[in-house]
Amino acid sequence: MAIMTNDEQQRRPEARKPRGFPDRTAAVIAAERRLVDSISSVYQRWGFDALDTGPFEYVDALGKFLPDTDRPNSGVFALQDDDEQWIALRYDHTAPLARYVAENWERIPKPFRRYSAGPVWRNEKPGPFRFREFIQCDADSVGVAGPAADAEMIAVAAEAMEAAGAARGEYVIRVNSRQLLDGLMESAGVIDGGQRGTVLRALDKFDKFGVEGVTLLLGKGRKDESGDFTQGAGLQANQIDVLLEFVTARKVNRAETIASLANTVGMTRAGATGVTELGEIDAILNALGLPEESVAFDPSIVRGLEYYTGPVFEAEFLREFRDAEGNPMRFGSVGGGGRYDGLVARFRGEPAPATGFSVGVSRLAAAMAASGEEKVDGPVLVLVLDKDQLADYATLASDLRRAGVRAEMYLGSSGMKPQMKYADRRNSPAVVIVGGNEREKGVVTIKDLKAGAAAAKGMTDNDAWRTERPGQFECPRAEMVARIKTIVGQS
Amino acid sequence: MAIMTNDEQQRRPEARKPRGFPDRTAAVIAAERRLVDSISSVYQRWGFDALDTGPFEYVDALGKFLPDTDRPNSGVFALQDDDEQWIALRYDHTAPLARYVAENWERIPKPFRRYSAGPVWRNEKPGPFRFREFIQCDADSVGVAGPAADAEMIAVAAEAMEAAGAARGEYVIRVNSRQLLDGLMESAGVIDGGQRGTVLRALDKFDKFGVEGVTLLLGKGRKDESGDFTQGAGLQANQIDVLLEFVTARKVNRAETIASLANTVGMTRAGATGVTELGEIDAILNALGLPEESVAFDPSIVRGLEYYTGPVFEAEFLREFRDAEGNPMRFGSVGGGGRYDGLVARFRGEPAPATGFSVGVSRLAAAMAASGEEKVDGPVLVLVLDKDQLADYATLASDLRRAGVRAEMYLGSSGMKPQMKYADRRNSPAVVIVGGNEREKGVVTIKDLKAGAAAAKGMTDNDAWRTERPGQFECPRAEMVARIKTIVGQS
Repeated sequence: MAIMTNDEQQRRPEARKPRGFPDRTAAVIAAERRLVDSISSVYQRWGFDALDTGPFEYVDALGKFLPDTDRPNSGVFALQDDDEQWIALRYDHTAPLARYVAENWERIPKPFRRYSAGPVWRNEKPGPFRFREFIQCDADSVGVAGPAADAEMIAVAAEAMEAAGAARGEYVIRVNSRQLLDGLMESAGVIDGGQRGTVLRALDKFDKFGVEGVTLLLGKGRKDESGDFTQGAGLQANQIDVLLEFVTARKVNRAETIASLANTVGMTRAGATGVTELGEIDAILNALGLPEESVAFDPSIVRGLEYYTGPVFEAEFLREFRDAEGNPMRFGSVGGGGRYDGLVARFRGEPAPATGFSVGVSRLAAAMAASGEEKVDGPVLVLVLDKDQLADYATLASDLRRAGVRAEMYLGSSGMKPQMKYADRRNSPAVVIVGGNEREKGVVTIKDLKAGAAAAKGMTDNDAWRTERPGQFECPRAEMVARIKTIVGQS
Repeated sequence: MAIMTNDEQQRRPEARKPRGFPDRTAAVIAAERRLVDSISSVYQRWGFDALDTGPFEYVDALGKFLPDTDRPNSGVFALQDDDEQWIALRYDHTAPLARYVAENWERIPKPFRRYSAGPVWRNEKPGPFRFREFIQCDADSVGVAGPAADAEMIAVAAEAMEAAGAARGEYVIRVNSRQLLDGLMESAGVIDGGQRGTVLRALDKFDKFGVEGVTLLLGKGRKDESGDFTQGAGLQANQIDVLLEFVTARKVNRAETIASLANTVGMTRAGATGVTELGEIDAILNALGLPEESVAFDPSIVRGLEYYTGPVFEAEFLREFRDAEGNPMRFGSVGGGGRYDGLVARFRGEPAPATGFSVGVSRLAAAMAASGEEKVDGPVLVLVLDKDQLADYATLASDLRRAGVRAEMYLGSSGMKPQMKYADRRNSPAVVIVGGNEREKGVVTIKDLKAGAAAAKGMTDNDAWRTERPGQFECPRAEMVARIKTIVGQS
């Protein structure tokens, strides 16, 4: 806890906080916990063991963000430790996993299956639903080659979406393959490394710009609405045709998509490998009972390709949320994954094939809270009317808690009206009132605030209901717990 | 995920991590979650709402660690944000709470009751069970004066200890008061501010050095075993007598301790206030049914006193753990709290009385895992013997998971022996074996590894038990799930 000095008292600090790290209140936190718990349970059930590598890594171990300047700070939160070495907060769970596996190679079981659920930090420009700290839940298998491991990851991703609250049809895992894209580049005669990058970025825009826009980006370039011009890849029309045929090769089901891709890129070695792999993945997905609506093969998926080396996929959460004003909030991709055979080798030199999946829960949780889908019930409030009866009021609240009811005694010296206002602010389902009258009679007065609110909204036209559950009533002290449990729905 | 450049491939980074941030594996994480969940449930039930203020605060808002040098870094992990302002990772949950309350004063219900459960970071020298990141679970009430709120916090602390796994008698909350200590200083004639600090530090050592050692520290000074000399407070013998009488004033119960303290410091104004407050706290503790063994009034408790302004207390976890070698691990204080009426005022200028409690779970969780008290069961392993039957093996594992059993299909291309070794490393309760033989007969072979391990340890002298639960058996495929559920204890 902080120590206050006279100095600080004199120059009063401003109560403000850094951008991109919003204060999260009860509903958001409840949604986060529910998501983390349910997704972790999926990983756990699939045989992944929990591992937390801690917040900091050396920047050279993290990769990507090397200390080429005196103070590296692009994308990560970095600082110098007291031994002068640069450390940074992890920006994902994968880079630390690679470090862990390399460091403990001789001691860990192989294949090494682990999951992680916790915050990662990105030193980026924050925005609405774009946080600088967010929670990711990852599962990874290290030391496994072959499509069975990839198929498993895709199935895990689908189960994670369902655990997050998406029914079948409310999510889709879209799968593509790095091998197929390698074959595609060969077929289309895209050989130059720089051009390859431009082409991949263009294909990645298919979702957004469609055939027309991507054709421009693959050819001479594209001018957007604001007049900004994006230089194109400068390909010939026949090359563009090959690329577009590939990107639009998704058919009604996985088997037909594979056949279509075999036609498009199956004649190249990489393409043929990719087609065979997708076939093996499909067989296992079928065995696991994953329908077409849950997992689609979609050649338009282009994803972190400098990093991935095999199958890649994205998890889309299709369910729509509406905020308090009724505006729809849609998510699109909430997670993704794929095969990354090079990351552990970066430390060890020897190959260590790996595949993984990561889902972000912070944006989802924020949407669930904003939509009112995730709510937290307030505590039952025991009013304090006679200051010399504190021990008695404390006992009443304690009796409720012992019965499992969320309850508190009002703390403070206000009168009844502010206490009722407080109960309202806290979203209390009920208050317990004991004044001199009640004490003499050995009763308590219970005010059912939910019933009161419902009555105020005209929802209680049914008189029988109103009689059965009046807004306010007296009952013997011995019945208080049972009556309150009925009100809060715990009886 | 990280992108590997050619540059990085050439100079291979070392797989190592910063000190004080241990990689936490499954058992530690399971213990942490259990502790966080159960303590959070206590806070929730008492009417506290979850709040997470995020990892970073401006250093001036954190207090204590002001940027008086170019790069403030004593005690906290600080860095400059891209707007050049210094931010730091929170070192507790209380300083950010004060910022939050001051920033949202008009919007929040008062009293404001919140709990937080999450990591805090201290840039300190790490050691065994001394981490630079650890999880704290805090509850606080802001905007409340008066001993009822303090009594409630003490009761919450006791329930938190029980939620953490300490039975009655296995923990104690030791309570003292800043008012009493103020009265004591007055009684003993300790007026000088610097001398006061030295006296408090000396009294804080009572636990460790006893009457003799503290007498030296209050007087001329004390030489320790290594020969190092600690300068004393330079008090007279009669002053030291007053102080020692106070520190040893703990009696067999709370009421007698109050009477004893009334004799010692009750004649001063602050002391009389403290005695009255303790009396009111005692009345509420009695109403809440908290026995003497759970909450003691102990005048030897001295705690962060520049910060606290009223009642203070420490939570001691008395239960002993033993590590794998049988060495006892004891904890002493795992948490503490008290009244801090000045922290929010630091921002607002106006007073905002507050009281709170904080418990650290990381050391406890580490001990629970090290003692073997917290264990994680491994997954059932479906062996892969025929590569062309992957879809079938995947189905068997999937059938188990659908029944709620933790299960995985072996991923890799190893023979049976390495697969069995892997099952052993993963602590698998059982493996499922299907070769050509089993396939023809429509059965599976199940190897009960727990039974096998028990047999190997000579624990199965009872032949009946051995027959009933043999180490290995065949069963029809349709019975696999039921038989496995019996083995893993989920039937």
